[in-house]
Amino acid sequence: MKLSNILYVLSGLLFILSGSFLFPLLFSIFFRDGLHFLFAFQMVGMLGLGLLLKRLCPKPTELSVREGFLIVALTWVVSSLLGALPFMISGAIPSFTDAFFETMSGYTTTGASILKDIEALPQSLLVWRSTTHWLGGMGVIALAVAIFPALGVGASHLFKAEAPGPIKEKISPRISETAKLLWIVYLLFSIVETLLLMVGGLNLYESLCTTFGTMATGGFSTRNASIAAYNSPYIDYVVIVFMFLAGANFNLHYWALRGKITAYRDSEFRLYAGVALLATGIIVFVRWTEGALWSESMIRSSLFQTVSVVTTTGFITDDYEKWPLVTQIILLLLMFIGGCTTSTGGAIKNVRVYVLFKYLSSVLKKVFHPHGVFPVKVRDRSLTESTVSNIVGFIVLYILLFVVGVLCMAGMGLDLATSIGSVAATLGNIGPGLGAVGPVDNYSAVPILGKWVLSFMMLAGRLEIFTVLVLLMPRFWR
Amino acid sequence: MKLSNILYVLSGLLFILSGSFLFPLLFSIFFRDGLHFLFAFQMVGMLGLGLLLKRLCPKPTELSVREGFLIVALTWVVSSLLGALPFMISGAIPSFTDAFFETMSGYTTTGASILKDIEALPQSLLVWRSTTHWLGGMGVIALAVAIFPALGVGASHLFKAEAPGPIKEKISPRISETAKLLWIVYLLFSIVETLLLMVGGLNLYESLCTTFGTMATGGFSTRNASIAAYNSPYIDYVVIVFMFLAGANFNLHYWALRGKITAYRDSEFRLYAGVALLATGIIVFVRWTEGALWSESMIRSSLFQTVSVVTTTGFITDDYEKWPLVTQIILLLLMFIGGCTTSTGGAIKNVRVYVLFKYLSSVLKKVFHPHGVFPVKVRDRSLTESTVSNIVGFIVLYILLFVVGVLCMAGMGLDLATSIGSVAATLGNIGPGLGAVGPVDNYSAVPILGKWVLSFMMLAGRLEIFTVLVLLMPRFWR
Repeated sequence: MKLSNILYVLSGLLFILSGSFLFPLLFSIFFRDGLHFLFAFQMVGMLGLGLLLKRLCPKPTELSVREGFLIVALTWVVSSLLGALPFMISGAIPSFTDAFFETMSGYTTTGASILKDIEALPQSLLVWRSTTHWLGGMGVIALAVAIFPALGVGASHLFKAEAPGPIKEKISPRISETAKLLWIVYLLFSIVETLLLMVGGLNLYESLCTTFGTMATGGFSTRNASIAAYNSPYIDYVVIVFMFLAGANFNLHYWALRGKITAYRDSEFRLYAGVALLATGIIVFVRWTEGALWSESMIRSSLFQTVSVVTTTGFITDDYEKWPLVTQIILLLLMFIGGCTTSTGGAIKNVRVYVLFKYLSSVLKKVFHPHGVFPVKVRDRSLTESTVSNIVGFIVLYILLFVVGVLCMAGMGLDLATSIGSVAATLGNIGPGLGAVGPVDNYSAVPILGKWVLSFMMLAGRLEIFTVLVLLMPRFWR
Repeated sequence: MKLSNILYVLSGLLFILSGSFLFPLLFSIFFRDGLHFLFAFQMVGMLGLGLLLKRLCPKPTELSVREGFLIVALTWVVSSLLGALPFMISGAIPSFTDAFFETMSGYTTTGASILKDIEALPQSLLVWRSTTHWLGGMGVIALAVAIFPALGVGASHLFKAEAPGPIKEKISPRISETAKLLWIVYLLFSIVETLLLMVGGLNLYESLCTTFGTMATGGFSTRNASIAAYNSPYIDYVVIVFMFLAGANFNLHYWALRGKITAYRDSEFRLYAGVALLATGIIVFVRWTEGALWSESMIRSSLFQTVSVVTTTGFITDDYEKWPLVTQIILLLLMFIGGCTTSTGGAIKNVRVYVLFKYLSSVLKKVFHPHGVFPVKVRDRSLTESTVSNIVGFIVLYILLFVVGVLCMAGMGLDLATSIGSVAATLGNIGPGLGAVGPVDNYSAVPILGKWVLSFMMLAGRLEIFTVLVLLMPRFWR
């Protein structure tokens, strides 16, 4: 591994991060909240650092697989470190741990917040907070690859290490073109949602921040009460629709925008929609049998929270901790399933769960047909043993990481529900969990060490655990 | 599948079940508690039914794999139904659900009890309760195969569907000889433990029942306070040693008894001992840092509960629900790991966990060495893809079954800790769980439907889930 290769690629990312400060800078000037110097300084500083690195490091002729993993992991950590500065310098979040947690939560589109009073922050800072979501949603590296095709030869390793899902279908043979098209779809949907929210009465600032939280399946809101603050069925439905779109495969959206609407007949998409509908149905039924009034608002809140959790967004319109325990456990399970391949959603992803069930069925068949051969098929194609192992291994590692996290949190004195909820919600990049980190609470009371553990979970979850776990293997560094 | 084949094999099992009533019958006569007629009648009845079935059904020339699975599952259900009769007829446990639960808990060596006051039961009935443990420990079918070598040709299917562990090493090329040798070792250890307990001051009745609970890794005791009632470090240590032996591979014991003490250098045995010691160490450390006095009794109770849980026995000397939450979560995890291959212990088994970690390591290595080949090895031999799939599939199905169980229990209104604890403790055949079914509680308050769900979990756990799950597949019946 060559340090100069790694730094060269990081320089490109610094340019993008620098550019992303344009959003809060403009809002800061508009709202006259005095933070424009801070954002301008940060822009220039990161641009300068980027130029310096680019000047010092020769352009790499090739990137190795291992350099790819390291660059991706480093990018996300460095982004969170640099992105935390405005929170600390402005004094809004003085603690380094808290500022890092909040920024990591933003970039990884988790949406877990340590803020007790969100509305007390300057608005431009909240724009910055939501901007981290938007960048992280489709991926900083995907954007870098889209903007700097010159990253060239190593781009596929980078893209693979960042993009969600085990089976990557490229909509263009060129990786940089694929990344660009995905980002264009993402941008387009974001514009439409912003406009629709403005039609619903929200101002540009709130519409934009809510859109960033939705399209990235992030969950940061400008309001303490999240989407519940708007108290508007129209806003609820707009957010539900765009959360659902954001959690679906963007390749399908691309084909649909090109006129091929049948792209949505995809098996993963159907599973995704089916899981969301089934879970909503069960939750509505259980809430109703347990005494909730049968009303549009009860059904809407059930649908909203289900879609919010299964897409790993984490927006809130109702306190689901007041619902029956079994509905909470269903939401907890949805936290593990998550969105689709090449979506902005986190967690295990539908197609992996699908493959797992196919795999288990083949294992069971083999028990009473010991000499039978039962290949695992997706979209009528047999997967290789190695792809199946990769997917099954991913799920088991995901569960193991969850268990280790719960042990850590319980070891710090958190109760069982909070330990389980906080780890599931950060590893799956959802945000609000259960217990003391439930939908109407926040992460401020988690011990400092716990915040670092959960930050690690967010990163591991967003980068689909392999990218982070391989760095922990001694063999990787040999 | 031929019904007559299935009934023929069941007849052999009825003879064994009939014989097993000799224990309570003798104690009933000795204690003059008036139940001797009941037991004698049951003996004769089952013997008669067995003879009838044997007369009616021709001896099978061959048993298919599927008949094997069905016979094993049926045997365990029928045993529990017939074994529940004395509890119901005597009036000690009038409810059918409760009596079935208690008997299933006995045969599957779970040791979960619905009895609020164990000591109120006639002693001969408690002997019967513990006898179900002892039969179920090494296996009713293993005993049948050992006693009736005539079962012959189908014996290997039956043995495979009942015996625990994924990799069966036969100590004799003949399956009936293997079963016989294992039962002899089991009997021998049982005699030694009974004698040692009598040396410690227990009478024959208590020694025998405690031994049955220990060697079967069951956990039924004749006392409400379980082993804590004896308040004797000597008894504690004897039980610790024999629980540990019962949770180890009986093949190793056989070789050791034949003089080959080096058999214990086995990798699974070392892992098993290592996990038990490590967990004890952590629990002692955490309890100490959280304020428990450093004393022999604190260390002993930590060791006792760790060995009790990891061997899936479930005897109690201390209320671990008063220990720090993290130690309870460690015990909960041990409930999943369980004992060794060809032990009387339940749950996932050490060797499977070992293979899983090897598998995960190979998956991770493949992430950054895409073209490398990393076979999973156990005892220096590479496992086939199909064996690895079988093991990994087992573990994932085990976890899924656990999750489904937790959902069911939570759906019936149990709290989170009780739902998790009750399913983990019954699926793993441990007995006492967490929350309302913790070490000083019992299962009497679980709703009726919940008791049936947990009975299913016990059976699925004891028969290593495949044997039960394949019966639920439509394809199995085609």
